[in-house]
Amino acid sequence: MAKVYRSTVLDAPAERVWRDLRDFNGLANWHPLITLSRIENNHPADKVGCVRNYQLRDGARIREKLLSLSDYDFSCVSAILESPMDVSDYVATLRLFPVTEGNRCFVEWWAEFDGPPEKVAELSETVGNGMFQDGFDALKKRYGQR
Amino acid sequence: MAKVYRSTVLDAPAERVWRDLRDFNGLANWHPLITLSRIENNHPADKVGCVRNYQLRDGARIREKLLSLSDYDFSCVSAILESPMDVSDYVATLRLFPVTEGNRCFVEWWAEFDGPPEKVAELSETVGNGMFQDGFDALKKRYGQR
Amino acid sequence: MAKVYRSTVLDAPAERVWRDLRDFNGLANWHPLITLSRIENNHPADKVGCVRNYQLRDGARIREKLLSLSDYDFSCVSAILESPMDVSDYVATLRLFPVTEGNRCFVEWWAEFDGPPEKVAELSETVGNGMFQDGFDALKKRYGQR
Amino acid sequence: MAKVYRSTVLDAPAERVWRDLRDFNGLANWHPLITLSRIENNHPADKVGCVRNYQLRDGARIREKLLSLSDYDFSCVSAILESPMDVSDYVATLRLFPVTEGNRCFVEWWAEFDGPPEKVAELSETVGNGMFQDGFDALKKRYGQR
Repeated sequence: MAKVYRSTVLDAPAERVWRDLRDFNGLANWHPLITLSRIENNHPADKVGCVRNYQLRDGARIREKLLSLSDYDFSCVSAILESPMDVSDYVATLRLFPVTEGNRCFVEWWAEFDGPPEKVAELSETVGNGMFQDGFDALKKRYGQR
Repeated sequence: MAKVYRSTVLDAPAERVWRDLRDFNGLANWHPLITLSRIENNHPADKVGCVRNYQLRDGARIREKLLSLSDYDFSCVSAILESPMDVSDYVATLRLFPVTEGNRCFVEWWAEFDGPPEKVAELSETVGNGMFQDGFDALKKRYGQR
Repeated sequence: MAKVYRSTVLDAPAERVWRDLRDFNGLANWHPLITLSRIENNHPADKVGCVRNYQLRDGARIREKLLSLSDYDFSCVSAILESPMDVSDYVATLRLFPVTEGNRCFVEWWAEFDGPPEKVAELSETVGNGMFQDGFDALKKRYGQR
Repeated sequence: MAKVYRSTVLDAPAERVWRDLRDFNGLANWHPLITLSRIENNHPADKVGCVRNYQLRDGARIREKLLSLSDYDFSCVSAILESPMDVSDYVATLRLFPVTEGNRCFVEWWAEFDGPPEKVAELSETVGNGMFQDGFDALKKRYGQR
């Protein structure tokens, strides 16, 4: 089981950022790698158990299931069902914490997954830099960052 | 802020019990105090943010919002919006843990709330015994208990 | 039960800040309100259950017990045993999280306590501003802050 | 990273069981696989960071560091420094929860570790059955179990 953990600070209140990030179908609105997203079966995007089906810029398609959504502690857990990446048991968690000093928020994004031993380092790089850090960079532009 | 905590052990696997308990509209199916329940606006019962509107045997009506639902760690957090009880900021959490020895599960149910100081003891009794323990007793009959 | 929550971001890695904050006897080294501190019975400061006995600048004396210390997730939980403040069941938690972007860390400090209803607002202000925020301000100077 | 999780229910209150289990040097008192234990450098067994050095019945020696100890939520986290097992990054957590119905407690014991892919299944069996379940069996006899 590989673990990838990234975190940053955004210059907007947790409540404000959560309004965007809780939308499980909203990745294409803010993540630079993702072009198209839809929730299968026309389910609402905040229905736990729904599946988002989205396309990366390189054409790859990912199906990912919503396992947990919390407006209480601003967190979201999801599992990849299908992807061109050579991963299994991929579970990712995104969580926001309020930074009371300065109306900012702290964001954690991490994943656990299995993969072929010889590919784990490369997969961790793809997830940590391509998915998480590129996402953070886009969010920082969106909300500003000191 | 008062806190009420109750926990028990049920003689069924966590996955099995969660299938029933994750249904935010399912209280009337198993809780002896509750007669009728519906989700407002015809939302699905696993849509985070939905409101259940249910009636107690004594006729009281409670509106309660789903704040968090997790198929990942078998937990549910909800907040009372309206009730005849003299409480405010009532937030309850229900969580299951697998007991690997014996295909049982451990259940926690707790709440935090504010109320008039002179009524807090009575309210805690109502919540802890009437809501939580009576609910546990019904679940124990449903699933059996050693 | 009143709750006070404060959080900030420090410009040093979590491991570095934790080296200072894990010292349960170290408050007087960095917190501006605290002048003298000792651990009772000459216990080591990282012995869970030890009691720190410290003096505020205004002469007040506080005895506080170490309930939990974690080098695993950089957290510390303690309970006030005696103080001139009109609080009971005061439990405070301090926790650090690494901010992977920029070698910073996110710090949470919160407390729960009971007190006379008419004094809770003032007590919350004292704890949140005097203890937590003044502590954060000193830490920010110590480690720098963007 | 392999994960092993075991849990059970003991017929004694969490406070009572914790009195025994919080003793990081106490394994030899109750665990059937362990014969001798000492804390290196004569440190107290509840000093976070201390190292226990214990011997298994088969003569193997294990050095394990205390990373976290909590009298607040009855938990203990430790890491193996040296052992004859072919594991790395072995971190184990033991945690108790009160079962309010019946003065019992729920116990979780789990570990994460890395090992050679071809040995992980066997190592998981050794840890899960030999260490955790055999420990549970001894605790059940000690405290009784319904």
